[in-house]
Amino acid sequence: MTSNSGTNSTSPTDAETACFEAGIKFGTLYHQFAGTPVSPASAASLERAIEDAIENQPYCESVSVAILADELDAAIDHGYTELTGRFMEVELVVEYEEHRVTARMAMEEGYPRMRVASIETLD
Amino acid sequence: MTSNSGTNSTSPTDAETACFEAGIKFGTLYHQFAGTPVSPASAASLERAIEDAIENQPYCESVSVAILADELDAAIDHGYTELTGRFMEVELVVEYEEHRVTARMAMEEGYPRMRVASIETLD
Amino acid sequence: MTSNSGTNSTSPTDAETACFEAGIKFGTLYHQFAGTPVSPASAASLERAIEDAIENQPYCESVSVAILADELDAAIDHGYTELTGRFMEVELVVEYEEHRVTARMAMEEGYPRMRVASIETLD
Amino acid sequence: MTSNSGTNSTSPTDAETACFEAGIKFGTLYHQFAGTPVSPASAASLERAIEDAIENQPYCESVSVAILADELDAAIDHGYTELTGRFMEVELVVEYEEHRVTARMAMEEGYPRMRVASIETLD
Repeated sequence: MTSNSGTNSTSPTDAETACFEAGIKFGTLYHQFAGTPVSPASAASLERAIEDAIENQPYCESVSVAILADELDAAIDHGYTELTGRFMEVELVVEYEEHRVTARMAMEEGYPRMRVASIETLD
Repeated sequence: MTSNSGTNSTSPTDAETACFEAGIKFGTLYHQFAGTPVSPASAASLERAIEDAIENQPYCESVSVAILADELDAAIDHGYTELTGRFMEVELVVEYEEHRVTARMAMEEGYPRMRVASIETLD
Repeated sequence: MTSNSGTNSTSPTDAETACFEAGIKFGTLYHQFAGTPVSPASAASLERAIEDAIENQPYCESVSVAILADELDAAIDHGYTELTGRFMEVELVVEYEEHRVTARMAMEEGYPRMRVASIETLD
Repeated sequence: MTSNSGTNSTSPTDAETACFEAGIKFGTLYHQFAGTPVSPASAASLERAIEDAIENQPYCESVSVAILADELDAAIDHGYTELTGRFMEVELVVEYEEHRVTARMAMEEGYPRMRVASIETLD
């Protein structure tokens, strides 16, 4: 592990790995589905498919996607638009070893910000 | 239109435009959703979301996606896999002006082959 | 071929197949790369990769992608943005049998419009 | 923050956030580019574009992508294939506050495994 030679270099803790796994799920979710043609009529099936797809990934306990109907309506003038961050809010839960990470995505200052909301220790 | 100067250069007919539109839908469908984590449990919601998403696009009358359960089962040894051409069959119908194009995707010789199946003239 | 039973149903001509193939390339190009993080500094390598990737596809003779620097600059306020139709113009050429199709994508009325520009007969 | 009410629930440390950010980059990289048509001739421009694209993301210091020529050659029998995990190895570095996370992706038991390799404290 050549880049790992510093005296202050460590392997990740289980909680850090849990956070890394939560990040993978968010990057996957966003970049797999960004660009999907979406309309008010197709939003519900897309929400469900995103949730089910990401829940397949390792350590992923649950995913909840809300496509924002009002934001979508405001943006559409050709019957549909492309899915992007400003049209959805997401919460997902990853469990790795004894750690449960809850992470969320929502718009902040015009940018879809992904954050770790909390880390809990499971009994 | 510099590349259009040959004496044998023509604008597309409506039937040719209908075929172009059908091709767009197939390229969209395949490359938007290829790579999606998929399992037998999540296949149905993904089929539905793909159909609904692509039906949003202009001139697209219907899309039918079948994720192939047996192919999926055979490929999975970590609980899920990534969606790719060998796991799905697709039929879609585009109508442009008085033309209806039916196009299909299925595996041929190890390659997901997309074809125009028929062009019909609508009354 | 159950949906093909009408008396007015035909198989595609070579020119129609050429247009279908051109459509596939456009759908692929757009939905594979929409959502990619892009900045003025990374635009050139992305243009090149898109061109080279799509030129791999069957019957695709050439692809030219221009990421629009001014549009990109105007949209960026966090250092980068996501690639979408309003940031690029594309021309591609497909040759199938004796037909050469030139197709283009550019913004029209706020929507990334893909069109067949011309069909030429090759000698 | 309703799901955050347990007595054992905490906010992430800076090192945990750094790992979350590294995970986002990996999920983005994989699911943005999986499915891209790739051949030995186009691999170099795709490597470069992936690196440049992901380096745009917040806190991402460097990305190194190697598309594996031998694996690609072995898989290709129609001139090209689709990019997927077994054709690439990736190392990326994220710096968040005083933490540098190095993470890697490579195949393990037939699955593209993403791991945090090390966490270093910056002076």
